[in-house]
Amino acid sequence: MVSALPTFDDVVAASQRLAGVAHRTPVLTSRTADARSGASLFFKCENYQRMGAFKFRGGYNAIAKLSDAQRRAGVVTFSSGNHAQAIALAAQILGVKAVIIMPLDAPAAKRAATEGYGGEVVTYDRYKEDREAVARRIQEERGMTLIPPYDHADVVAGQGTAARELFEEVGELDYLFVCLGGGGLLSGSALAARALSPNCKVIGVEPEAGNDGQQSFRSGSIVRIETPKTLADGAATTHLGEITFALIKAHVDDIVTVSDAQLVGMLRFFAERMKMVVEPTGCLGAAAAMSGEFPLAGKRVGIIISGGNVDLKSYGGLLAGA
Amino acid sequence: MVSALPTFDDVVAASQRLAGVAHRTPVLTSRTADARSGASLFFKCENYQRMGAFKFRGGYNAIAKLSDAQRRAGVVTFSSGNHAQAIALAAQILGVKAVIIMPLDAPAAKRAATEGYGGEVVTYDRYKEDREAVARRIQEERGMTLIPPYDHADVVAGQGTAARELFEEVGELDYLFVCLGGGGLLSGSALAARALSPNCKVIGVEPEAGNDGQQSFRSGSIVRIETPKTLADGAATTHLGEITFALIKAHVDDIVTVSDAQLVGMLRFFAERMKMVVEPTGCLGAAAAMSGEFPLAGKRVGIIISGGNVDLKSYGGLLAGA
Repeated sequence: MVSALPTFDDVVAASQRLAGVAHRTPVLTSRTADARSGASLFFKCENYQRMGAFKFRGGYNAIAKLSDAQRRAGVVTFSSGNHAQAIALAAQILGVKAVIIMPLDAPAAKRAATEGYGGEVVTYDRYKEDREAVARRIQEERGMTLIPPYDHADVVAGQGTAARELFEEVGELDYLFVCLGGGGLLSGSALAARALSPNCKVIGVEPEAGNDGQQSFRSGSIVRIETPKTLADGAATTHLGEITFALIKAHVDDIVTVSDAQLVGMLRFFAERMKMVVEPTGCLGAAAAMSGEFPLAGKRVGIIISGGNVDLKSYGGLLAGA
Repeated sequence: MVSALPTFDDVVAASQRLAGVAHRTPVLTSRTADARSGASLFFKCENYQRMGAFKFRGGYNAIAKLSDAQRRAGVVTFSSGNHAQAIALAAQILGVKAVIIMPLDAPAAKRAATEGYGGEVVTYDRYKEDREAVARRIQEERGMTLIPPYDHADVVAGQGTAARELFEEVGELDYLFVCLGGGGLLSGSALAARALSPNCKVIGVEPEAGNDGQQSFRSGSIVRIETPKTLADGAATTHLGEITFALIKAHVDDIVTVSDAQLVGMLRFFAERMKMVVEPTGCLGAAAAMSGEFPLAGKRVGIIISGGNVDLKSYGGLLAGA
């Protein structure tokens, strides 16, 4: 049983909520990338979004829609990634209490960043406890509203605002490449594409090691996998959501995969040629577009760069080829 | 004997030549940088300039001013850094032949980049030959015009266009921090500051290991040093130029130094918080502004980031702390 699916009208309403709060991130181009791909590439740079990733859009939209009573009680979520920081920051801006459930062994930097935005971190033992059960317990004990990372209509609508800005700025496109983890960004982007550029092919891009989305898309029902081992930690999800899968089935043209080696090549290209820090997950769309496997010659191609939050030690190592 | 010094009118004329050719680079801000410094910081990001550094401005301006006969004969310069690529690219755009004199042992990547822009690289043995003598020989043999890296009125005027754009965009400032090697960027920026924000303190920033500019500024005459060992390779110059020193004496308020450790701290900040690749030399101005040694509380502070051309292996190592 799928909740009501968000529509493009919900994306437009989310844009209005986010106006003046989220950054309208730049759309960058690169002569070198165009020369290599034969296409005109438009990079929508959510690595320059507040807290460093598109996740702020969905998190803020979801919290901004809460009633006064819900806001007073606060919100809870589970994430050790960008969604954690997004909820913490959005809640701080809106004056709402936020509890973030993280594994005991989450990287100290991620915990510190979340706490830096005022989030209360509650840890659990991921070998013994189920994070969703921990979240439900806190929901019940404190009357808080759960804002999950992707399977939520208001989160999806918020994520769709990035693609909406892209189409507003550059007009219709032939292709749009979007990274795919749980599907919030892809399904929101697809809503925007269908409304603003109906003939645009929307391609979801997953890491090779975790192609549950591709399997689901091809089989027609949600496929669950083990947590994949990939550099694209933001796309190391085990399954799509009910809402995101329904939207993906309806509006996405294909789902493809790229290897970790392709991600590293792209990450280096962004640093060397575009002077931009992009996290591995954020390279998924571009790596597919630059793979040579799509007939992009002469086409207008949008790519959403999802974020730029990196651990300097591992990022530096990837750049240096260590 | 100093040639005629460029004026702000020359900077304005250079802006007109560069319109539609050079990028009008973005002015970025950072909540975190503001919180740490207590000031409002405006980063003029020449790392996003064509070929990755402000040098394109001066090189293009100088070549664009040549007569038809001079253009037909071509240009020559000596540089193994950003000026080499700037001259190669500017000459390519203007349909002019360019010879770049580089040491035999220049990094292969720098040579390839220069050749990639269509420049003809002529090598010399830097242990046996003098690059200026090599340049003079080519000038005479081929009738080419020498465009030196900084001590040239048209180069200085072109470099001043970046600061001019900054003041146009954000209005008057209390401070402007500019990196200092041979002084082309600093002296051009000072011309713009004096015209557009007369009370702005203009601070040149050198690497600690190579403070010839500071010594010259304080002693009143050009001091020459041995080639300094510093991460800031773009500022590893041995002396100011006649033109740049005259302008610096007239228009700059102070020259300060920062350590390589401060540069690395800044380089990491730019990557981690602003998702931006900045070369070590490009970090000089920001490192001084963030040092806590200036009374910047509540002030409006401009910082020119000079470039973002890095060798990924060494840059990655600096990020990773290797």
